[in-house]
Amino acid sequence: MKIGISGYGNLGRGVEFAVKENPDTELAAVFTRRNPETVKINTAGVPVLHVDDAKNWADKIDVMILCGGSATDLPVQTPEFAKYFNVVDSFDTHAKIPAHFEKVDRAAKDSGHTAIISVGWDPGLFSLARIYSNAILPDGKDYTFWGKGVSQGHSDAIRRIKGVKNAKQYTIPVESALEAVRAGKNPELTVRQKHTRECFVVLEEGADASKVENEIKTMPNYFDEYDTTVHFISEEELLKNHGGLAHGGFVIRSGNTGKNHEHNHIIEFNLKLDSNPEFTTSVLVAYARAACRLNKEGSTGCKTVFDIPPAYLSAKDGEYLRAHLL
Amino acid sequence: MKIGISGYGNLGRGVEFAVKENPDTELAAVFTRRNPETVKINTAGVPVLHVDDAKNWADKIDVMILCGGSATDLPVQTPEFAKYFNVVDSFDTHAKIPAHFEKVDRAAKDSGHTAIISVGWDPGLFSLARIYSNAILPDGKDYTFWGKGVSQGHSDAIRRIKGVKNAKQYTIPVESALEAVRAGKNPELTVRQKHTRECFVVLEEGADASKVENEIKTMPNYFDEYDTTVHFISEEELLKNHGGLAHGGFVIRSGNTGKNHEHNHIIEFNLKLDSNPEFTTSVLVAYARAACRLNKEGSTGCKTVFDIPPAYLSAKDGEYLRAHLL
Repeated sequence: MKIGISGYGNLGRGVEFAVKENPDTELAAVFTRRNPETVKINTAGVPVLHVDDAKNWADKIDVMILCGGSATDLPVQTPEFAKYFNVVDSFDTHAKIPAHFEKVDRAAKDSGHTAIISVGWDPGLFSLARIYSNAILPDGKDYTFWGKGVSQGHSDAIRRIKGVKNAKQYTIPVESALEAVRAGKNPELTVRQKHTRECFVVLEEGADASKVENEIKTMPNYFDEYDTTVHFISEEELLKNHGGLAHGGFVIRSGNTGKNHEHNHIIEFNLKLDSNPEFTTSVLVAYARAACRLNKEGSTGCKTVFDIPPAYLSAKDGEYLRAHLL
Repeated sequence: MKIGISGYGNLGRGVEFAVKENPDTELAAVFTRRNPETVKINTAGVPVLHVDDAKNWADKIDVMILCGGSATDLPVQTPEFAKYFNVVDSFDTHAKIPAHFEKVDRAAKDSGHTAIISVGWDPGLFSLARIYSNAILPDGKDYTFWGKGVSQGHSDAIRRIKGVKNAKQYTIPVESALEAVRAGKNPELTVRQKHTRECFVVLEEGADASKVENEIKTMPNYFDEYDTTVHFISEEELLKNHGGLAHGGFVIRSGNTGKNHEHNHIIEFNLKLDSNPEFTTSVLVAYARAACRLNKEGSTGCKTVFDIPPAYLSAKDGEYLRAHLL
């Protein structure tokens, strides 16, 4: 299976590493908006090309994995690339998924390609945990906790404050809330009771620390509903101790069964990830395999993880899977 | 969707309760090998019939859920019922799944029905955790822990010992092993290091306790490779404190990604169940929905959880699922 990468940042590099782990996949080409000559990749012999050349590769690539951002890149790129390729993306703006789905579906159906959108861990594996556990326990309650991990959006929001030079924001699940959920207590939890936020901030010279701290803690939507801690540190310390990309989280459904709903059941799915982008792209490559197979079977248009039989993600055949993993 | 139940023990009752939780399903009839007049069910107005009458109901039932045991019932019943019905079973003898699959597949294809076998939590949801996490992290290691919960097979094995009147056996995961796996240490674990076994035994009058204890602890396959504790208790205590059907377990994959495989990721799926049979049957009813849909689409033959798109388990449509659960 020949894989193309569009966009060579953290995600693009992650796809490149994941392709090496999967013997049935190979990297065909990397496409970038930058000057291709300035982009050095980790795989010898694979061409780096300008993104405008991509369409000339339509018959040399089985699946194009789109490694752009959800804010401005993917809403344009996924429907455009779906004209020429089977595609997989990690579009993660939950509220805009239905609109994105419609656009991509039209493009993929018109051109006879298969697209799988919103692949990764949330949306993605967490969505799978939600759909399976909801179907199995209709009488129940869902809880999703994120962290401990860096939230890119919240870190960016702090960086936009006047007087801030650099910042990292960690989202941290509240342990006591997690324990109450796991104990089957079905608590009603406010935003504040589920997560805390911890910020590491580098100030510009002469900036007013208490003013910055106040601006962070009262920022609507991002911080005002949370218990937020702000630490001021040097740029050296930020780069040394807060450069990691670890993340994770928990999806828990607590539900009841029985004649009088007397039996409680807890279904928990959790992730602890050293590298958010490398894990996300490992999921993307597994779904690229599914996109390729579905297209060969004539199943075109836009899909999500909900539409894909699990066996389509595996390089192994049905007989092997039934004998070894069932 | 009209559901039939074949076999009315703990599983059959569980299906009956689960049907009440799912507004798109209704119970059509219960079939039993006993004298139907002696079987009282919990749903008013639903007929209880002898299992020999089942084939006369072929056009009145959308999916028959088979609630027999894996040792002797299902190997015969599932292929036989697949001649007349779409069927779902919970066949859980892992080593015999490939042979069972072949027999059921032939019967279901010949008659144009859809069969889903080995549905429940292991095999079932644990198998799903294994296939997804293996496809995503090819460089990794799987761990499955069961418990704390009652093992029916081990309890039965103790009851067959001369001098034993009754017994319950709990399988208990070793907490330190679980913690080492969760910490990404990828330990090599022997059978003894993963689980302990705790037995509650009621002796016949005059039986030799130390002889029974020795026979349990040295029993090949069942106990000899484990650290086993044996408690002798009265029958009253057994019935009062050890009548529950709680169970659960953990599937964990620990895998690595990155240029030099330097990033570790932990994918964990775990269950904590007050009632093993009621949870198992909640899974069966969700897959009955999938069997019915697949059959309407013309997809016949035998399937497992690996072959079923997650959306087929849900009563909600794709648009709802994308907007709310993705």
